[in-house]
Amino acid sequence: MSVLQSFIAGQWLGETPARALPSAVNGDTVAHTHEEAIDFAQAVDYARRIGVRNLLALDFQQRAAILKELAIYIQGRKDELYAISHHTGCTRADSWIDIDGGFGTLFTYASTGRKELPSGNVAHEGPVTQLGKDNHFNGTHILVPRRGVSVHINAFNFPIWGMLEKFAPAFLAGMPCIVKPATATSYLTEAAVRVINDSGLLPEGALQLVIGGTGDLLDRLEEQDFVTFTGSASTALKLKSHPNIMAKSIPFNAEADSLNSAIMAPDVTPEDDEFDIFAREVVKEMTAKAGQKCTAIRRVLVPAERLDALVERLTERLDKITFGNPAEEGVRMGALASRDQLRDVTDAIERLLATSECVYGRAEGLKPVGEGVENGAYIAPHLLVNRNPLNDGGAHDIEAFGPVTTLMPYHGIDEALALAAKGKGSLVTTLTTRDPAIAAEMIPVLAAQHGRLHILDAEASRESTGHGSPLPMLKHGGPGRAGGGEELGGIRAVHHYLQRTAIQGSPTMVAAVTREYVRGARVIEHDIHPFRRHFDDLQVGESLLTHRRTVTEADIVNFGCLSGDHFYMHFDEIAAKETQFGQRIAHGYFVLSAAAGLFVYPGEGPVLANYGLDTLRFITPVAIGDTIRARLTCKRKIDQGRTSPEGHPQGVVMWDVAVTNQHDELVASYDILTLVAKRQ
Amino acid sequence: MSVLQSFIAGQWLGETPARALPSAVNGDTVAHTHEEAIDFAQAVDYARRIGVRNLLALDFQQRAAILKELAIYIQGRKDELYAISHHTGCTRADSWIDIDGGFGTLFTYASTGRKELPSGNVAHEGPVTQLGKDNHFNGTHILVPRRGVSVHINAFNFPIWGMLEKFAPAFLAGMPCIVKPATATSYLTEAAVRVINDSGLLPEGALQLVIGGTGDLLDRLEEQDFVTFTGSASTALKLKSHPNIMAKSIPFNAEADSLNSAIMAPDVTPEDDEFDIFAREVVKEMTAKAGQKCTAIRRVLVPAERLDALVERLTERLDKITFGNPAEEGVRMGALASRDQLRDVTDAIERLLATSECVYGRAEGLKPVGEGVENGAYIAPHLLVNRNPLNDGGAHDIEAFGPVTTLMPYHGIDEALALAAKGKGSLVTTLTTRDPAIAAEMIPVLAAQHGRLHILDAEASRESTGHGSPLPMLKHGGPGRAGGGEELGGIRAVHHYLQRTAIQGSPTMVAAVTREYVRGARVIEHDIHPFRRHFDDLQVGESLLTHRRTVTEADIVNFGCLSGDHFYMHFDEIAAKETQFGQRIAHGYFVLSAAAGLFVYPGEGPVLANYGLDTLRFITPVAIGDTIRARLTCKRKIDQGRTSPEGHPQGVVMWDVAVTNQHDELVASYDILTLVAKRQ
Repeated sequence: MSVLQSFIAGQWLGETPARALPSAVNGDTVAHTHEEAIDFAQAVDYARRIGVRNLLALDFQQRAAILKELAIYIQGRKDELYAISHHTGCTRADSWIDIDGGFGTLFTYASTGRKELPSGNVAHEGPVTQLGKDNHFNGTHILVPRRGVSVHINAFNFPIWGMLEKFAPAFLAGMPCIVKPATATSYLTEAAVRVINDSGLLPEGALQLVIGGTGDLLDRLEEQDFVTFTGSASTALKLKSHPNIMAKSIPFNAEADSLNSAIMAPDVTPEDDEFDIFAREVVKEMTAKAGQKCTAIRRVLVPAERLDALVERLTERLDKITFGNPAEEGVRMGALASRDQLRDVTDAIERLLATSECVYGRAEGLKPVGEGVENGAYIAPHLLVNRNPLNDGGAHDIEAFGPVTTLMPYHGIDEALALAAKGKGSLVTTLTTRDPAIAAEMIPVLAAQHGRLHILDAEASRESTGHGSPLPMLKHGGPGRAGGGEELGGIRAVHHYLQRTAIQGSPTMVAAVTREYVRGARVIEHDIHPFRRHFDDLQVGESLLTHRRTVTEADIVNFGCLSGDHFYMHFDEIAAKETQFGQRIAHGYFVLSAAAGLFVYPGEGPVLANYGLDTLRFITPVAIGDTIRARLTCKRKIDQGRTSPEGHPQGVVMWDVAVTNQHDELVASYDILTLVAKRQ
Repeated sequence: MSVLQSFIAGQWLGETPARALPSAVNGDTVAHTHEEAIDFAQAVDYARRIGVRNLLALDFQQRAAILKELAIYIQGRKDELYAISHHTGCTRADSWIDIDGGFGTLFTYASTGRKELPSGNVAHEGPVTQLGKDNHFNGTHILVPRRGVSVHINAFNFPIWGMLEKFAPAFLAGMPCIVKPATATSYLTEAAVRVINDSGLLPEGALQLVIGGTGDLLDRLEEQDFVTFTGSASTALKLKSHPNIMAKSIPFNAEADSLNSAIMAPDVTPEDDEFDIFAREVVKEMTAKAGQKCTAIRRVLVPAERLDALVERLTERLDKITFGNPAEEGVRMGALASRDQLRDVTDAIERLLATSECVYGRAEGLKPVGEGVENGAYIAPHLLVNRNPLNDGGAHDIEAFGPVTTLMPYHGIDEALALAAKGKGSLVTTLTTRDPAIAAEMIPVLAAQHGRLHILDAEASRESTGHGSPLPMLKHGGPGRAGGGEELGGIRAVHHYLQRTAIQGSPTMVAAVTREYVRGARVIEHDIHPFRRHFDDLQVGESLLTHRRTVTEADIVNFGCLSGDHFYMHFDEIAAKETQFGQRIAHGYFVLSAAAGLFVYPGEGPVLANYGLDTLRFITPVAIGDTIRARLTCKRKIDQGRTSPEGHPQGVVMWDVAVTNQHDELVASYDILTLVAKRQ
């Protein structure tokens, strides 16, 4: 009889069985929780002392690299996880969302971290602002690890993705995590944590697992800690109201299920491809994970005159959904996660029926297919219609967390918007329209109450990832009833786990703290050209002030002839006199090119390529006879562990370039991006 | 007998006097609150119906322009406000922080809004991410007005700045505000609201004022609303725990006073300028606003061996501080805001003395000077020393909200960091050091528990805005005890009041919603060159696909000779063979210049100047014989209401440029920034 174990302070804990966890598929016991109590004081202390120390011994780039290795490792052992996932009631497609979606999120965050985070453990958010006239006092913002622990309390429906989508950004941010999965499906999370531990990739203290209740865990937290929660709105409220969390202003990020809608815009007719695309999306969202997604479509808003046609189209599609034991050939919808869930969903349907009628699911006598289904947690898809949704509250408030959706007819766009808003804050709405003008009108209004909006037309449907799929690069979480939190959203998710702090000081001090050159900071001037320095040797602040060049009329003429750019500002003395400059001026791109001519070291060297340029501003025009020079300063170094196609290790170096004229006025200002070889 | 009035639903309300509000300076009654009850249901309904409608009839740029006008108007009437501010106990310098600081914040947000927000009411945050292989499905993020009301509950110490620093970003974000100042000094806020109303600049419904209590206001709020609070940690806790706020996940931003510290680093000796600079900052923060700033220095951490020298230096400076009626010549410190405050501060000092000794303020028999002081709220500056701060908790927990600070000796940097952390989350710490390496070591650790860090050395001191001054462009608010909120921070403050929403759809739909061209969206192709279109006529998506140009060896040679850039990648066949490109390639800046040659319309026209370029990436190298062309597309239009030096109205246009080669591979990608004239 298998007993799940918690992983606390580096040890697996638990031998005595407590609660039996039944398979959603056939009711057999999959595993037991453990009886032994967890010492949460020890868990938190361990995370703070060992976890924080080990995580901050690495830097952002190194942690990103570990995430990638971990994703590869889990991918290699995913079949074990699929086998266990089956017991949660999942079809193969459902498990894919959880398992491949889980390590896929690690891959994305590995890449996000590599591209968007610096070397070191101080992220310079900026912008650097000059706070005094003579540039002796600057301000900027940094983001730093909080040096606390992150507690993640997760939902039953995505035992792996739910853990990894929070773990990935928290780990990048340098926070050790204590993960508490929902008990019903914790056997799958436990299996995933065993796989992760087997990998040996994570530093000690980075991850702890709680099987069972959280006991006094929340009482043990301090100001620098962090709590995230996914689950019902009522549990979210209970947890975030915890006196210790409130008193210490511990950040609490909630993502609660919500009454998401899908809206068919008035322009879509049954003859349009979009009509069918819409119906397909609704049925997909009803049946994927047997409707157990906090993002599933619970309310379908349809122009009143299209209601009957849509019911017909949905019915056709639903008739093709075989549900039952996911091991069975042809089964397209599996079980709810537990018989507790089945009872909750059945109960919610009863309550919905006070204001709605059932047009599919009840009367049809649909039965699950396959072995053991009599002891599993199965329910047929249910399609309801609420004919008076402006006044009948039920379907805007009651969430049946299963394959259940309610159709609502509307009259005109304003009514559709008003109905969508009755969800009081949702994770996501799909809008299907063929008309960009309708999208431009409706989306900004809907956006005020949503975390994500999915515009589905024929073009998008060719590649859409779907209404119900949170993506790592896009924000997940909605206002109001949806919990008011934000997860994912690319680098934003990492920032949520970091502390933002404004920094003020002299440019030299600001540069020292941010590890980035700031104009006005002390520079380092060698005899050796900075382009001849390898990545390893180059220091932030190394700088070259170039020789000068007088810009002549011949330069302008030659540059115009060579580029083909004969803009009147450079070539037409009559028109140029009328401009604010009062004379012909040099091309901006000539100044840029001439500056490169001043600072580039022509011979072979460690600087391999200039692959980009950012925030170029032309500040003072260059007239014929002006003399320019450039200052090139190493601004930022990032070691992403990258290599050239030939395998030679290299790093990214950003250079600050300031081009000035004979009056020391700034002519042009920009950053250039280069790849610089490391020493062999 | 003057009765203050609330301004609710466009009407001034209140005639019957209730509570008398005494002058802090001499105890005379300045005004009374009103007896009449406020109908908060009406106030909230009015804000949502009238305020939201009127604010969203304007766009971000128009609201920014109004803020500027309003700042100018208040500036013109500031003397009236100074006269009233005197009663709050302020010296002229103290009032400057509140009044000039207040309209100064409006100026800053006018400028921030103008520079960083679009025309329209949808801010496109980005980044646009391609979510499908063939670019039929994109994702991005927008920020939109929440369409709710913002309730601001403010502290007594900054009756004007406290209102305006929150009003400015909320107004920019399109949120009507209900402002509730602390009652004790609400007469000054009321005067400021009268000035604002007199200006006639704000749309109806943008601002309401509550004199007295908030009644059932918080019960009236909904998901789309917003609450901010500044004041004590205990009141913050009470308000944010309000059941309605919790249940609806209404964003609650708290900024609570905290036990801020100033740290003298171990490298600073009494002979250094920094020693004196540090002492001056401490005394300034003790005495400005009579220490009634949530950012004031409450704890001074000093190397144990410097403690005596610092006490001596501080005493010398404190001896020069005359305190009393601020109308009196030579008075450098005024009164506390009320006799209630005086009692609280006196009480807090008593509690601090359980673990500290008083080295200045008690024994000296210092007395306030000037008329009426016997009935005012005066207290001498108090300097305490806690000799065992690692173990004696008092000074880390007890906030005496007056001219009181406690010195704490430390031994070594780690101990200093540990002591600072005992504040459990603070708004700000000043670190004084001469050594950038010490700043680089200490600041990232301190940052985890602070909202702002002020590094003060001799260079910074020449222009420092001071430890205690939140600036509009820098974040204000700290973690933990400081409330866990964020205010100000430039554009961030506006974003706090907006709702962030992820958008997914085809490029055409994403472009329609964001009002920005997205690669892959439908373009508009005219016969007329887009550079010949005035700002008014040009539409986002107007596009030009240029003729082609074959890049020749002569181009590279000529470009190298003209620019002076003879980098080996372009000129050294031997070295170029060894690179990943295997051959000489064209200069990136040549490609950029040639692209301009392809798309620039040479004659006079509405496009006045190319003033910048962003996110240039060189993607595919251009070899000799390659043929390039460019697509130029109008990406974004912003009408900042700007004019040329000659007074001609113009707008900002950003253009998307994609340079491709004969295989339709992307060669270079960037945005260019231009000024485009409007039609006369």
